Amino acid sequence: MENNSYVVKMNGNGVNEKNALNGNGLNGNDINHKTVNGSVYTAKQKSSRQRWNIRPSEMSNNTLNPIRAIVDGMKLTPNPEKPMIALSIGDPTVFGNLPTNEKVIQAMKDAIDSHKYNGYAPSVGYQKSREVVANFYSCPEAPLESEDVLLTSGCSQAIDLAITVLCNPGDNILIPCPGFSLYKTLAVSLGIQVKLYNLLPEKSWEIDLQHMESLIDDRTTCLIINNPSNPCGSVYSKEHLQNVLSVASKNCIPILADEIYGDMVFPGCKYQSMASLSSDVPILACGGLAKRWLVPGWRMGWILIHDRNQIFGKGIRQGLVKLSQRILGACTIVQGAIESILNDTPQEFYHRTISFLKSNSEICFSELSTVPGLTPVLPSGAMYLMVGIEMEHFPEFQNDVQFTERLVTEQSVFCLPATAFEYPNYFRIVVTVPEEMMVEACARIREFCQCHYRPCSQDSNELDQ
Amino acid sequence: MENNSYVVKMNGNGVNEKNALNGNGLNGNDINHKTVNGSVYTAKQKSSRQRWNIRPSEMSNNTLNPIRAIVDGMKLTPNPEKPMIALSIGDPTVFGNLPTNEKVIQAMKDAIDSHKYNGYAPSVGYQKSREVVANFYSCPEAPLESEDVLLTSGCSQAIDLAITVLCNPGDNILIPCPGFSLYKTLAVSLGIQVKLYNLLPEKSWEIDLQHMESLIDDRTTCLIINNPSNPCGSVYSKEHLQNVLSVASKNCIPILADEIYGDMVFPGCKYQSMASLSSDVPILACGGLAKRWLVPGWRMGWILIHDRNQIFGKGIRQGLVKLSQRILGACTIVQGAIESILNDTPQEFYHRTISFLKSNSEICFSELSTVPGLTPVLPSGAMYLMVGIEMEHFPEFQNDVQFTERLVTEQSVFCLPATAFEYPNYFRIVVTVPEEMMVEACARIREFCQCHYRPCSQDSNELDQ
Ligand SMILES: Cc1ncc(COP(=O)(O)O)c(C=O)c1O
Ligand SMILES: Cc1ncc(COP(=O)(O)O)c(C=O)c1O
Repeated sequence: MENNSYVVKMNGNGVNEKNALNGNGLNGNDINHKTVNGSVYTAKQKSSRQRWNIRPSEMSNNTLNPIRAIVDGMKLTPNPEKPMIALSIGDPTVFGNLPTNEKVIQAMKDAIDSHKYNGYAPSVGYQKSREVVANFYSCPEAPLESEDVLLTSGCSQAIDLAITVLCNPGDNILIPCPGFSLYKTLAVSLGIQVKLYNLLPEKSWEIDLQHMESLIDDRTTCLIINNPSNPCGSVYSKEHLQNVLSVASKNCIPILADEIYGDMVFPGCKYQSMASLSSDVPILACGGLAKRWLVPGWRMGWILIHDRNQIFGKGIRQGLVKLSQRILGACTIVQGAIESILNDTPQEFYHRTISFLKSNSEICFSELSTVPGLTPVLPSGAMYLMVGIEMEHFPEFQNDVQFTERLVTEQSVFCLPATAFEYPNYFRIVVTVPEEMMVEACARIREFCQCHYRPCSQDSNELDQ
Repeated sequence: MENNSYVVKMNGNGVNEKNALNGNGLNGNDINHKTVNGSVYTAKQKSSRQRWNIRPSEMSNNTLNPIRAIVDGMKLTPNPEKPMIALSIGDPTVFGNLPTNEKVIQAMKDAIDSHKYNGYAPSVGYQKSREVVANFYSCPEAPLESEDVLLTSGCSQAIDLAITVLCNPGDNILIPCPGFSLYKTLAVSLGIQVKLYNLLPEKSWEIDLQHMESLIDDRTTCLIINNPSNPCGSVYSKEHLQNVLSVASKNCIPILADEIYGDMVFPGCKYQSMASLSSDVPILACGGLAKRWLVPGWRMGWILIHDRNQIFGKGIRQGLVKLSQRILGACTIVQGAIESILNDTPQEFYHRTISFLKSNSEICFSELSTVPGLTPVLPSGAMYLMVGIEMEHFPEFQNDVQFTERLVTEQSVFCLPATAFEYPNYFRIVVTVPEEMMVEACARIREFCQCHYRPCSQDSNELDQ
């Protein structure tokens, strides 16, 4: 393929020759240029390129964003009589109802005023900032030191580095279905295969462990667990996580724990980090400031290396350090602010966010539970809620994409079709929108469903009896 | 290789089996676990992994940092009687003598206070911020619009994206020698070959165009030009740049112009962007706030796409956008601040930085010009100066690494040996240090050289005559 894309000619190509001369304002009498030409001709004999033919690399071609692919393919024309409500954007800041805490803002301004954080930090982050993150997440069952922490440009880069250090092209990783699309985007762009393990909506999105384990082969080099989950809002029990670890341990597969929504769980439910339950399975836990501190644009993430049995050993640690030197990590101002961000943000702030998310989730869940043809799944954390569409009751639509597209056309409500998470016939609702917007959106979804719902033949039979 | 690294056994492995059970606090009677086991055994028959054997990926192994490799291999024990002077660090902020401008600081605080820049930006940056950068760099010969700009996490990410979009594994790129080490680090990690073209110290580090062109073959997909240069401090004339463009044009090779030191040129010398001289050669110009605004830690960089003849076409643009979605780009606070940073920073600030760098360069150059055995090359911009070592006059040392190592031991002055830039028998001096430090360092270098200089036999003959 590569060879075809360049036309190699031994004889000069008149058109381009001319371009080369005129284009640069040089003429044939320019002395420097003649000298250059002398060597050009020498080079040409070896074979050089005589026509422009620049193509984007395989890697860029293979960097696929399913959300963009689907959303860009949708005809999203809202009903002009109803203001648009977007329940699709995984950014808690867009409506202004969930500002970050004043301490977080102050920490940034102090970092700027100190004039201490303008220079380069080490590629893995300032020692002090790594120490602060280590202390914040350290627990007796899974102690952390500053050397166990790498600061990254968002949780996205943390995931990128973790996948990149663990996997070679041709290896495969196990990822959740439905799941956050970045895992696949990154892996595929690196030539790493993905295998999707099922989550079970009827079990509050627990992992189908049997299915997951059946996917493992000798090229499986990483198991990605996202808890709490985007797009499900699920939070796994201690027992379930132990079972996951048991599979990983038996099959000797390290875990990439995407815990960006760590601690964002509703009262009554307990969040356990993967690492706190693991005795042998080595874990790269990825997190960041984006969600819990409500500042996703600041691009501050981290990898916590949990490896008490030295299974990763020095190799993986050094590999991560080397990879971090490619583009360096997080903005130094945020690094400078992180001590105060983690240590001075009042508990009250976290509680308020979680209460709001819980209350909005409950409003949404209870509203949609009584809508004919929809089966919402109650979340326990994060900022999302998945809703099943009983497609047999909506014969007008072939799938979740058509369903959500029409929901925009008629009701000006946009929810992301879960095909974007490789999970057709569901859609995802983001519960960070203001309460009145959530209420209004649910009412419109109800109207939409009532309008399009058709009882199945069997159901109508039942009614007839 | 991969296949050897996993031990695949069909029979259970006692030790790991036990680990898996005990490790997770489960016992054989746990019902869930038994279910899990059921499937484990099924999976096992297909072949699964029975021993921990996690290795860092090829890509991480191939991510090599020559500066670290060389510096870590040096014995850097300063003379306890002299305070250490590091002329090695390419970070203008370390000594506090070159603070950024107050407007730059204020722009950041305003961005934070606005509460408008906490959410996700588009992966290529805010539209408004891209527009501001486009306007700042637009010129009649090379006009730019916001769509021509991608904001990145530092110039490093800009270079990474540019190389990644233009090259496939097996392709090659041409890079300067001596040159900034990141080009090779990134390329090699991606399986892209590098070919080094020579710069000519005797011609103020102009490119040996004949040599450069002789390296081109039909897998050459990118020509990297760094102007002004790290480590040389050289600034190319219009004519020289036109000759470079002529070679690129004739051979149909796009240019990656690393212009992170753009506009940092000394009075009397004129900086020309590559793009302003190109009529046909498509150019990805990489830059950022790091050097000129003296805030390298903030990680704000950009790619300017210059492609008036639509040679890159949509493919390269879309490829860059796709690649930008892997980890997203620059911190939104800096993005929010960039309008004011670019438009409100007083000219006076830039002038002061440049005057300082020029004056320090001249001090350093004129001091070292009279040191026996050294041949400094006068820079015209950036923040560096290269010094040749006439190794034949220093028979005690085998190379620049040994020379600079002993300079630390005896004089507590550290300069980076240019072997780090693939250019042995030179060392690089960073001219951002305070003037008195520069003066003192030069005096110590003189003392060191006087102490170790040996006239060659020929020279002594001459003296004898
Ligand atoms: C599950 C999950 N992981 C990672 C990320 C990326 O986080 P960041 O914005 O810090 O890169 C997200 C963002 O939505 C997410 O939902
Ligand atoms: C020539 C050159 N290009 C690029 C960079 C990287 O710039 P940034 O810190 O913005 O990633 C540097 C940094 O020293 C450099 O010298």
